[in-house]
This record gives sequence, C-alpha cells and structure tokens, in this order.
Amino acid sequence: MSTTAANYPPYPHFLLTHPSSQPCTLYVEINRPQKLNAFSAPMFSELQDIFERVRLDSGIRVVILSGAGERAFTAGLDLQGALGISNSGLKEGEGQIGRDSYREARKVRETILQWQKAVNAVEGCGKPVIAILHGVSYGLALDLTSACDIRICTRSTRFSLKEVDIGLAADLGTLTRLPKIVGSMSWVKEIAYTCREFGGEEALRMGFVSWCEEGKEDAWKRALEVAGAVGVKSPVAVEGTKELLDWGVGRPVRDGLRYTQIWNAPAILAADVKEAVTATLQKRKPNFSKL
Amino acid sequence: MSTTAANYPPYPHFLLTHPSSQPCTLYVEINRPQKLNAFSAPMFSELQDIFERVRLDSGIRVVILSGAGERAFTAGLDLQGALGISNSGLKEGEGQIGRDSYREARKVRETILQWQKAVNAVEGCGKPVIAILHGVSYGLALDLTSACDIRICTRSTRFSLKEVDIGLAADLGTLTRLPKIVGSMSWVKEIAYTCREFGGEEALRMGFVSWCEEGKEDAWKRALEVAGAVGVKSPVAVEGTKELLDWGVGRPVRDGLRYTQIWNAPAILAADVKEAVTATLQKRKPNFSKL
Amino acid sequence: MSTTAANYPPYPHFLLTHPSSQPCTLYVEINRPQKLNAFSAPMFSELQDIFERVRLDSGIRVVILSGAGERAFTAGLDLQGALGISNSGLKEGEGQIGRDSYREARKVRETILQWQKAVNAVEGCGKPVIAILHGVSYGLALDLTSACDIRICTRSTRFSLKEVDIGLAADLGTLTRLPKIVGSMSWVKEIAYTCREFGGEEALRMGFVSWCEEGKEDAWKRALEVAGAVGVKSPVAVEGTKELLDWGVGRPVRDGLRYTQIWNAPAILAADVKEAVTATLQKRKPNFSKL
Amino acid sequence: MSTTAANYPPYPHFLLTHPSSQPCTLYVEINRPQKLNAFSAPMFSELQDIFERVRLDSGIRVVILSGAGERAFTAGLDLQGALGISNSGLKEGEGQIGRDSYREARKVRETILQWQKAVNAVEGCGKPVIAILHGVSYGLALDLTSACDIRICTRSTRFSLKEVDIGLAADLGTLTRLPKIVGSMSWVKEIAYTCREFGGEEALRMGFVSWCEEGKEDAWKRALEVAGAVGVKSPVAVEGTKELLDWGVGRPVRDGLRYTQIWNAPAILAADVKEAVTATLQKRKPNFSKL
Amino acid sequence: MSTTAANYPPYPHFLLTHPSSQPCTLYVEINRPQKLNAFSAPMFSELQDIFERVRLDSGIRVVILSGAGERAFTAGLDLQGALGISNSGLKEGEGQIGRDSYREARKVRETILQWQKAVNAVEGCGKPVIAILHGVSYGLALDLTSACDIRICTRSTRFSLKEVDIGLAADLGTLTRLPKIVGSMSWVKEIAYTCREFGGEEALRMGFVSWCEEGKEDAWKRALEVAGAVGVKSPVAVEGTKELLDWGVGRPVRDGLRYTQIWNAPAILAADVKEAVTATLQKRKPNFSKL
Amino acid sequence: MSTTAANYPPYPHFLLTHPSSQPCTLYVEINRPQKLNAFSAPMFSELQDIFERVRLDSGIRVVILSGAGERAFTAGLDLQGALGISNSGLKEGEGQIGRDSYREARKVRETILQWQKAVNAVEGCGKPVIAILHGVSYGLALDLTSACDIRICTRSTRFSLKEVDIGLAADLGTLTRLPKIVGSMSWVKEIAYTCREFGGEEALRMGFVSWCEEGKEDAWKRALEVAGAVGVKSPVAVEGTKELLDWGVGRPVRDGLRYTQIWNAPAILAADVKEAVTATLQKRKPNFSKL
Repeated sequence: MSTTAANYPPYPHFLLTHPSSQPCTLYVEINRPQKLNAFSAPMFSELQDIFERVRLDSGIRVVILSGAGERAFTAGLDLQGALGISNSGLKEGEGQIGRDSYREARKVRETILQWQKAVNAVEGCGKPVIAILHGVSYGLALDLTSACDIRICTRSTRFSLKEVDIGLAADLGTLTRLPKIVGSMSWVKEIAYTCREFGGEEALRMGFVSWCEEGKEDAWKRALEVAGAVGVKSPVAVEGTKELLDWGVGRPVRDGLRYTQIWNAPAILAADVKEAVTATLQKRKPNFSKL
Repeated sequence: MSTTAANYPPYPHFLLTHPSSQPCTLYVEINRPQKLNAFSAPMFSELQDIFERVRLDSGIRVVILSGAGERAFTAGLDLQGALGISNSGLKEGEGQIGRDSYREARKVRETILQWQKAVNAVEGCGKPVIAILHGVSYGLALDLTSACDIRICTRSTRFSLKEVDIGLAADLGTLTRLPKIVGSMSWVKEIAYTCREFGGEEALRMGFVSWCEEGKEDAWKRALEVAGAVGVKSPVAVEGTKELLDWGVGRPVRDGLRYTQIWNAPAILAADVKEAVTATLQKRKPNFSKL
Repeated sequence: MSTTAANYPPYPHFLLTHPSSQPCTLYVEINRPQKLNAFSAPMFSELQDIFERVRLDSGIRVVILSGAGERAFTAGLDLQGALGISNSGLKEGEGQIGRDSYREARKVRETILQWQKAVNAVEGCGKPVIAILHGVSYGLALDLTSACDIRICTRSTRFSLKEVDIGLAADLGTLTRLPKIVGSMSWVKEIAYTCREFGGEEALRMGFVSWCEEGKEDAWKRALEVAGAVGVKSPVAVEGTKELLDWGVGRPVRDGLRYTQIWNAPAILAADVKEAVTATLQKRKPNFSKL
Repeated sequence: MSTTAANYPPYPHFLLTHPSSQPCTLYVEINRPQKLNAFSAPMFSELQDIFERVRLDSGIRVVILSGAGERAFTAGLDLQGALGISNSGLKEGEGQIGRDSYREARKVRETILQWQKAVNAVEGCGKPVIAILHGVSYGLALDLTSACDIRICTRSTRFSLKEVDIGLAADLGTLTRLPKIVGSMSWVKEIAYTCREFGGEEALRMGFVSWCEEGKEDAWKRALEVAGAVGVKSPVAVEGTKELLDWGVGRPVRDGLRYTQIWNAPAILAADVKEAVTATLQKRKPNFSKL
Repeated sequence: MSTTAANYPPYPHFLLTHPSSQPCTLYVEINRPQKLNAFSAPMFSELQDIFERVRLDSGIRVVILSGAGERAFTAGLDLQGALGISNSGLKEGEGQIGRDSYREARKVRETILQWQKAVNAVEGCGKPVIAILHGVSYGLALDLTSACDIRICTRSTRFSLKEVDIGLAADLGTLTRLPKIVGSMSWVKEIAYTCREFGGEEALRMGFVSWCEEGKEDAWKRALEVAGAVGVKSPVAVEGTKELLDWGVGRPVRDGLRYTQIWNAPAILAADVKEAVTATLQKRKPNFSKL
Repeated sequence: MSTTAANYPPYPHFLLTHPSSQPCTLYVEINRPQKLNAFSAPMFSELQDIFERVRLDSGIRVVILSGAGERAFTAGLDLQGALGISNSGLKEGEGQIGRDSYREARKVRETILQWQKAVNAVEGCGKPVIAILHGVSYGLALDLTSACDIRICTRSTRFSLKEVDIGLAADLGTLTRLPKIVGSMSWVKEIAYTCREFGGEEALRMGFVSWCEEGKEDAWKRALEVAGAVGVKSPVAVEGTKELLDWGVGRPVRDGLRYTQIWNAPAILAADVKEAVTATLQKRKPNFSKL
C-alpha cells in the first residue's frame, strides 16, 4: 500500500515511504517502537537531514509525520539515549576537572541549539506537514508537532507537556510556539505547569488538533484525505500560503502585509494562476508543474 | 426602514444607508448581487474612499458591512473585472515587448499595495465595523472581514479561503490577520491549504464569528443590536478601545502598555468620563458629544 | 484551615494566608467585601508591594488570588476611592489655575503608569498565579486576571469589560493582554465595545478560564488542586516555563527560541533534573530545594 | 538650462523642472522665497502630491530637492500659514464651545498625521532624493531632509532643530530619523534640546550631509554630478538598493537579510543584470529600460 | 557658588546641589573620591533613588552628573564593595551547601537586574542629563554615561570599557547602548574586546562626547552653558523631545512616527506653544510654568 | 613566520595558518590571487565550512581575514565562476522550457540564501574577526567585512559597493549591515547608489574601519597587535561581549538589557572572573582555560 521513498537514503530510526496513491506525499514514520519512539541524540540529526532534503525536493508536495507501532507517537526524549544533556545533568565529577558551570552551560546551549535546528527543519521544509499523534505523546511530541502545520490525533492519544516533570522547561519550541497556535493561554499554562495528561477530545476542543479520530487507522485516513487535497493544488500557492502564515506570527500586521506584497508579486506571475483559472473554465483538473 | 447616507456620494457598487433607528450607524452594502458581489478593480477604490470618509466623519459611530442579495457576501475577486492582475497573469505577449518579469512583478506589487490599502482603510476607519457574512463568502470575503472588528454569519454561509484554488496565496490580508483572530492555527492552515468550504457553525466554533444566526434577517437583527449598543457609548472610549486592541497585535506586552499610557492620558480628561459617571449616578442615559 | 502568611506585613485591603496543607502556596484575598472589593488608589500600592515580595520569596511556589466575600471578585475601580483619576476627570476648576490640559494629562499618565506597574508586578512575580473569579468581576477584574497565569471561575460569575461604560478605554492591561490569551478577536471586541456581561460558561468556551465550577467553594477546591500539583514540581522548571511562555508573547518564533537556549542552558544543570529523574527511577517523590 | 516638468501639473509653491542635461532628473524647488520658503498648510498637500506622482513616474530616476532664492532652504513651519495647529494652540475660545481637550488633541493628531504623510511621501517615492540645503534651514528643514537619501549643504547653511524654541517636540520625523542617520546621539540631543544653530562644516563632520560646498551654485553642481551618476544606473538596482537600505533601519539583521532574499530574487532576473554585464564586456554604456 | 538641593535627602555617596545661577539645574556628584568614585552596592540604590525623585520633581529641568575630586569620574565597580557579585564570583564554598550553579546564577541575575534598574533610572528621569567625564572613567563610567543624554569630557579623560579585563561582558548597558550612540561599530568592538584606554580627543572624534575641553573646570563651564540653554526652554518641549528620541532607538521608523503623533497631540495644546510664540513676537523671554 | 592550521582540512581557495607567535589566532586568507580573490560558487561553501568549524573550535580565540596577493582583498563575485546566479541572469532559453519566472526566482532565492548563510557563518563564529582590506575591495568585500567585527585597511585600498554597477542591489548583507556600523546614512546611500570608489582615509573617517595603515604589511602588524590583545583575554568575556553587541543591533534598549541579564548571569560565575581579579592582585598575567 506504500512504496519506498527512493530519493532518500535509509535512516536507522525513521521509515520513509510514499502512500501508493500519492507519490507526491512523503510519509515519515518515527521508527523506534520498542522504545515508544523516544528520541536519542542521533535521531535529531536524522530528522534534520530528512527535512532539509524535503526542502529541496520539488517532487514532494506534502508530508505526513507519525510514530510507528500502536503505543506511541513518541514518549519524548530518551534520557539514556540523548546523552548530551543527561550526562551533564546527571553524572558528577567525570571529565569536568578544571571546568566551571559556565563552560558546562555552554555545552548544553550548543545541544539545545542543535536540537532546535532539527525541529526548525520540520517547520522550514516549505511543504505542509501533517502530524498524526496517537498513544503516548509526551514532551518532545508537542515540541515537534507544534512545528508542524496540521495536527490530527486519536481519542486515546495521551498528551502531556512532560518537561516540568523531569525538572526543566521545554526548550525545543513548545513554550514559544504553542501559545501562538491554540486559543487559551490559561489552558496552555495549566498543562505546562502541571504536566497533566489530556486526551484527544480536549486537544480538539482547545484547537491544538484539527481532528480527533477514533483510532490510528482513522487518523491515517484523515491525514491521507487532507494530503490528497493539498497535493493537487498549485505548489506555488501552497508554498506561499505556508510562508506567509508562518512569517506573520509574532509580528505587527503592517509588517506582514508588506512582506506579502514582496513575496506574492512574482508568484502571481507564475504559470499556475493561468493554469488554475483555465482548468476551472474548462472543467478539468489543473496540472501544475513542480517547483 | 433606512435612510440614504446623505453625507456620502453615490457609489456604483456600494449602497450606503442609515438604519432608520440608528442615524449614527452607517450601513455599507456591497451592491453587485448579479455577480455575487465579486470585486472588480474599481470597487477597491470605492471601498477605500468610503472608509476614508468614515474615518473623518464624526457623525458615524459604528459601521455594518454586508453584501446585497440573497446569494453571497462576496464571491471574491472578479477575475475578469479585476483586470490589473488577471491581465498580467493570464494574457500573454500584449504590451510586454521589452519588458521583463521583474518589471511585470513590480506592476503586480503595486496592484497588491493598492488593494491592501483599500482593505486597510476598513481596519483603520476608527469605528467598529460589524460584518454580516451570508451565502457565498469566498477568498476576499475573508481578507475583508478579517479586517473588520466583529463578524456575524448565518448557518448557511459558505466560507472558503479560496485563493489557493486559483493558484495563489491570499495577499489582501487573510494570511496575516486570520491567525491573530482565531484560536487554532491547525484549523487555519487546513482551510488555507485545502480551500475546503466550511459553514457558519464551524466559523462560530473556531472563533471567527461571534454569532451564527439562522438567516440573513436574523443576522441583520443581531448586527443592529450590537451596533445599537455600541452607538450609545462614549465615542472617545470606543475609539480608544479599538486603537489599543489593534495596536497591540503582534507586539510585546510592554510595548502595548506603554502605548496605552500615552494614548489614554488625554482621553481620560475628555468630558466623556464625567458625563458617563454623572449619568450613571443620575440614572439617566449619558449624552456624549461627537468626536 | 489556613495559616497567616508570617513573612508578610499585614495589609489594610488584602488578606494573606497559606492553605494549611500547602505552606508553599500563598493565598491572596482582595479584602474589601463591603465595597465589592473595588480598588481604591492605595490598594494598587499594596498589590504591588505584595507581589514584589512574592518575587523575592523563594518559600512561595504558587499564588492563588481571589476576592473576599460572596458577592464579587472585584467591581473594578472605586471611582470615589481612586481619586487620582476621578478627580482630574470629574471635578472642575480646583487646583488647576495656571495649568493646561497637557500638564493634567501628564499627571494622569503617571497614575496609569503606577497602576500598570502594580498589575505588572502580578505578572512578573515569577510564580504561577491562579485567579479565582466569582460574582461581580468588572473592569479591573479583567485587567488584573489577564496578568495571572490560570483562571478559574464559577457559573454565576458576572464578567464585564466595563471601562467603556464609564467613558474610557481599559488602560491597565486588558486591551493589550486579552487578545493574546483567548481565541476569538471577534468576541474580544464585542465584549469590549458593548460592555455586555457574560457568565462563566461563556468565559470557559472562549478560553479565558480553564474551569468553570459550580460555586466559589468548588472553584477554591479546583485552585487548590492545581496549586498542589504545581507546588511539588521543580521550582527551576516552573519558573523557566513561566518566563519562556510570557517572553514569547508578541515576538517572532526565532526570537523565542534563541531566548530559550540562553535561559535554559544553566537551568538544565541545576540539581533538579537529576533529582527529578532519580526520584522517578526510585519511584519516590522528588524533593527540590528552594530557589 | 532647465526644462519644465511636463508630466506634472503646476504647483503654487513648488517649481518642477528637469536639468537640461538630465531629463530623468526631477528638480523640485520649494518656491516661496519671499517667506523664506516657510511651509503653509497647503504646501504639505502639494509636497505629497508631487512625490506620490514621482513614485509612479518611471520616467524619473532621481530627484533633487532645494529651496528657491538665496536666503533659505526653508525657515520651517509658517506659523500663521499653517493654521491647523497654530489655531488650536494659539487662539482661545473660538469654536470650542462644548469641546474638550481630548477632542482638540484628536484634531491636532490628524494634522500631524497628514503632515507626516507628506514627509513620508518623499521617503517613499522609490527614487533617490538629493537635498540641497542652503541659508536658513530650520525645523521642518531637518524633518524633510532626514527623509531624503543624500544631503548636500553650503558653508553658510544655518541649521537649527528649531521646534523646542516654539515650545514643542519635532513631530514630522526628525526625532525618529535623525539618530539613525548620523553618528553621535550626544550631538543629536544637544542640538535638539538647545536649538543651537550649526553650520555646514559641522553638519559634514557629524555625517548629516555628504558634502559641504562653498555656495549654493557649487552645491547644485555637486548634486547634479551625483544625480548624473545615479541616473545612468539600472533603475531596478537603484530602487532595490533604496528599499533594502530603508527597510533595514530599526530592525534586527536577520529580518533584513530575509527581506533581501525575497526582494532580490525576481530583481536579479530582470534584464538589467544581463545588460550591465554585457555592456561592461563590450566597453559601452549600458542602456536600461524604464521601470 | 552652589546651593544645597533642599528637596533631596542627604546621600552617603552623592552630593546634590544647584548651581547658584541655575536653580532648576540639579548637579549630582558621585562623591567617593578617595576610592576614585568606584561604586559599591549601596551606591546603586542611592543612584536609583536620586533619579526616581528627579523624575517626579518638576522643579528640575536639567541634570549635570560628574565625579568628585580631580582623579576620576568613576573607576567602575568597587570589586570589594560591590559584594553581591564579587562574593559569588570570587569566594568559594561559603553558604553554598546544597545550592547549585543555577541557583547561584539566579542570584547574580537579580543583582544585574537591580543595578540595571539604577542605570535605567538615569535614562528614564525625563530630564536631559549632561555627564562630565574626567580622569579615570572605566567600566561602569561608560554604562552610566551611555544612559545620559549629552557627554562632555576633558583632554586627559582616560576612558576604558574595562569589563573584559575582569573576565566578564559589560552588563549594565554599555554593550546595548553604545553602538546606538556612536558612529563606528568597528571602533566599539575594538575598545570592547581589547579594553584599550582612549582619551578625550578620540571620544570626541567617535561621537561619544559632544565636547572635549581642556580641563574639568572648562568642562564644567561647558556643561553649565548647555544646561543654561536647555533650562529656559519649555519643559513640555524638552520632555517630549527626549522621550521621542529615546523611544525611536532600535525601532522601525513608522513605529516612531506613530508614537510621535500620539505623544505630541496633547503636548501641542499645552500653554507653552502659545507662550513661546507670543514671547518671540514680543521680543521677550518666554516664561514656562513647571510640569 | 606562521604554522599551518592543523585542525582544519585544506581548502582549495583559502589558506589557514596560525601566526607563529599567536597559536590561538587563526589567519584565514582568501587565496585566489590570480583572479583578484573573486568568489566562485564553491568558495561560499568553503567559507561557511571554515567558520562553522571555528565556532566549535575552542582552541581559537580570534580570527584574521584577508586576501592573498598584493592586488585585492576581493574583487567581489566572480561572474563566470559563480554560475548559480549568472546563469539564470545571463543566459536565455536553456533548460527553462516549461519553467516560469517565479520558479526561476525561487532558484535565485535559494542561491542568495546559501550565500548569505556563508557570510552569516563569519558573523556567527563566536570569535572576534578582524578583516584586513587592501587593494581592490569591491562588492562582496563589503558584504563580507560588514559581517566581521573590526576592519583595518590600507591607504590604497579601493573600496566600492559595486553591485549597482552590475544591475542589482547588494544581497549578501551590505545593505542591511552597513548603516548599522557607520555613522552617516547620507554617505552610505551615496556610495551605494553611485558605486563611487573611495579610499582608506575616507573609510576611516566614516567609521567603517578602525585603522588605515600605510601598506598591507602595516595593516597586518596592526591586526596582529589587536589579535594579540584580544587573545589573552578571558574567552568567556570576549564571547559574551560579541554576543551582546551583535544581539542588540536593531532592537529596543530594554530588550537588549533583558537578554544581557540572562546571558551574563551564568557567565559571571565562570572561573574567569576569579582568575582575572586574582591575577590583577598578584600582578601576573591571568590564565584562562578554553571554552
């Protein structure tokens, strides 16, 4: 029902395929189900590499991101596997002779920077990314999917902004992005401070997800349906829409409007407008060339 | 049931009246029902002219904006009538001898600038603008009403952020303003990428409109009720409230608070506070002078 | 059921206690029930003093703010008691010989500045603040609780953004903060322009509060439950979470992410991460030292 | 030695010509020498109209702005002729029955807005504007030329940031723009607070002007030389250079770089790069088509 | 030659007087000459207290700030006297049992915050502050005077941005403010990285000071001359000029212009414009009332 | 007199060495003298790779950047070698069948992005970079060195902001960065619009460079002297100073101060402050460990 993504190398912890009916959709699965898809340090590099390739791959028009297995989208950071931080935070004395806390903090800052870059690569890949969240969806699950465009979950998804429970503030993007994508700061703060679990229905009600489906299979169908709808649109129009929506966040309206003028002026001259309008008049499906 | 707006010239594509019971309310109707109120190029100039006059007209305290006829608020841009862009985008070869794509893009940029100015004039008119959306409400319908203050629709309103379907990203303001006025970015992106139609109930649930009424008549009653309530308030208070709400968007909190101090200091010394408090104590309706 | 907050001086208009079971929770009650907890000028100084002390008090991990008595959280500004402004606005002629309107406006600006500072002290106290709103919750009630983190109300809470009714635009923060914490600008503008009352259910639906409980007692229990959950977390994690959430508001995503790197790097090296993880492994409650 | 600017209407207070050798240079002279070129209210409208036409006039590639007569560039605001403000500020009692200070302030705000728009039109005309300052150059002279691109003066130019001397802070742009275009805030504040006159040599030393010439004739030659050099460049390159320089002011570097990418991408595809490079290789003058 | 500033309490480390000829000028001397006017921790509180009083003191129109004695404006932070930081940074082991590096860093952050507030109080006092720098002017000398409006020095002033030499980056404002007030980032970075001393002539050439005088006495005369010129201007005009200059720093031009409209509208209605113009016409000195 | 930089791979177009007396200084020479050090496309990748390694190399404390040979720092972009853009801009028809101008512009945008990233890598390497400019220093020479910290030139350096002469606006950073690092916008615009050459003395006078030396050898000595002075400082202090100076550019002062608090708090706890102060007291050279 799906084909291997031939233009991409194999990744140890991610599985890349195309849904058989949608060759322009890339399906990225976090593939470490035996560890509840928890992220070890190398997985961030893989994630970044995948989405930087997606950015340059004009054959892809939309991406679906999910977690392999029945139990979890991701349980978050694998504390043992993500050694960069846990080492500094948990072990004492080793290799730190002659080093002071600032120099330690600097190393941590570098790790945060690198991991943020991996998450930013998802946001910046230039194509709509649809996340399917199911089962355990803790910590990094929110950082990662807050950087996606559209979120879908299941009734039994167990969300938790888990970072406070391990003694730190979320630093891969949740605290920056989440308040800008849902509609209640009171709710954001409550789940951030308490680490309370919440389910799919609540995520839907608060606007975090666009759909809450019965099970993973239904969520997958919904994702495919959306991906299918997006995939036949003009890639010029979709790319611009994503760029302008993301750029406007956290900026005054007039800045957004000016940027829109500059961005859109050449885009409107692309062949796509002509093709879209002509196809409509001829009552046929439009056919847009790649970017 | 309504009287002509005597201080305004007649406009070919807009009908301006005052509800008979509310002389300080201006009712602006997009009046091209035979074309589903689609916008041709000259309509942007008319729109801008109307709302620039409203800005300077201290006799007006609130505006209601709707579309004439039963079928549509507006179907969006009239692709044939809005020649500025469609010409560049759709026709080939004519008048372009010796011109290159940058020079073409520049012309398009100028058109976007002018049309954005028209929409900005609505936002910047200084009075609350209540939009009533009914029937077909595509593309520009969202750009335009995102720049209004309060939105009311009917159950059968057919919303669609239609731009992607004609091969372009919305450039008259929807992509900049919409995420700042509703509570789910996941939803915004889904309707932006897919151009999926949605109805009044969904618009209400997502916070885009304040009310979803049964029919256009009910929506009109609701709008009148709100306009009536706003129209008897101090115009100093209403003007300041609008200014401070709009200025704060996309800016840090401390900047908003500082601006508020500067704006409000002279406003508090207006006669209106005294009149409002005195009237309350005397259990009579306050009587505020014009701006 | 509660003990006096021994580290704080007595305040004429506020009552400070610790819930007996939560010595790290500070319970601040606006205590002027005979005036519906309306704010007189000195109450702003008291409020600022309390929350500036909270900022430096590492014994406190969470704050609950409510209004004493059955009838009101607060009815807003006490127009007679808050003389600074009402005097300027309401009386004529006295003490103004030789003064002009700019000099008057300057004095008003200073008053707004001072009162904003008091509200900012709540936002900036560094600990989560949970507001319980009940009964009459007008004007300042919204300015004040918009600067809190989490809001809880009762079904019979009577909210109103009352300022326009007394002839002015809200200037202690509502207009800047409210649109950033709820999910519908259309709704914000409607309640701001019309001063319409709304109840707890509506506040919940719009995302302003996290819970709408049956009565004040239930709201109190809910607040205690949240406070209890937050109070046992790492204070380093909670402080950072609040800082990063608040700093990101009204700023571009990349700025938020950079700030997060800088903030979190030393925080991750705090003993708290080690303690949190160790406690989890040992299946015991973690024990975090004070800040 | 110059020809009338045929595409422009005659203006009562401005003289528009083309230097005979430079048909693409528009020479705008403030033409009210008997009043030291002081600005009355209608002159702002004329100024705005001129530069809005310049923006759309692809026949113009560079503008020179100076003041007619030997005595002054401009003595600033004509206090009697610029009635809008002086009336409000200076006369008492008339027409103000029933009006309060806020409503008066609102009218003043509108006047400032309109006059700022006129000055902004100079900055926003899209072509380099070279100002020649000579003789009395007070108040508005600085607001106006701070919005120009390149400034040239004479040894005997008498500059003064005069506004404080008439009891107000400069509001047409000097206070916002001047610190961004010279290199010493200590100097800016000294001349702003004291209204001290300074001459051409000092203006040159502080970076306000690019040249200080002996007399007006020399300054004119210098301006012509610069205009001549700019006028033969690619208009695409010059327009982009101005846009990117102006947009970057007061913004973080990364924002400027991003905007640059978006702006420049289509511009680089213009015919101008090819023509410029080809002409260089062929050792001939390039020939760029109009915008 | 000067009189005690009667409205101010005595300060252990600052001497406050009025020049005999200028009762509206406050002369603030850092008065710890035996320690080269180095700052101990309590001196920050004193400094803040002085300038917060200045902000509210309408009898003061301009401030002169200098250092007592012949040898130094200030040698910077008194490493022994400024215990808050040096303790944390220099001593080991004491009182840190059970504390981690984050908690230590938090304490340092609080100290920086408090000391920045003291420097900000100078910038925010609402009146022009003229600094006279002489002799040793190290580290804090630059932080402090970068927050002043106008700087004057002597030929023998020995400037050094000294912080890097004691192992830290300047954190009381130099690094933020200095690049915005002088004209060469290459120079700023060179003196910041190398801690190289530079003299008065160089400070003048780079735009950091407005005058470099022969000796302290001459600098004092120059300061008095400037203060005298500023002191007779309209306090409304001077206050607004300072506010608008400072607010525009680091912001886009359009934001500065908007703020200017709002600020200036009521200010123009002050009695000062009328008085200034009338006095000019009557060829007499204007007489402005206090703020 | 210098040793090979052993930790770096060899680069085809750059020569990396350490001055023999300064092992912590990295000397990067653009090494394509036969082409006047003009940049071909692969040179951007090399440049980026070098400076990304520098960022992570704690053995390096300062970098000197210059151009090999006697004739040029760099003549700018090698129009033939930098095929990415010149191809699109100069050739017609090939490989563009079925492509439209937007898709072409997109490719150009990607190239600008990549080349900006290379220049940004210089700015973001975390160590002070001292540029020596000599001979022909055109176009990219300014983009590149505007991203350095300190600039030194020779009397015979021939500067030119050359981009307009080849028909485009500078897009690798000059237009964004230059106005923020020199003190006269009038001068910046004049050299930007006219492409006029200017020499070392003028560059010094305008604040672009810190020194103008007689010849390349003298400039090299000066650079070594500065590098030597910086190299013995605390790397914590130098890194922080650079970060805080760069971060403050184009941002409001209060934002810079807040960032400074957060950044500096852990840095002050580094061992370096103690070592610096102790060494001073002991009259010995301090000895700072690597980052």
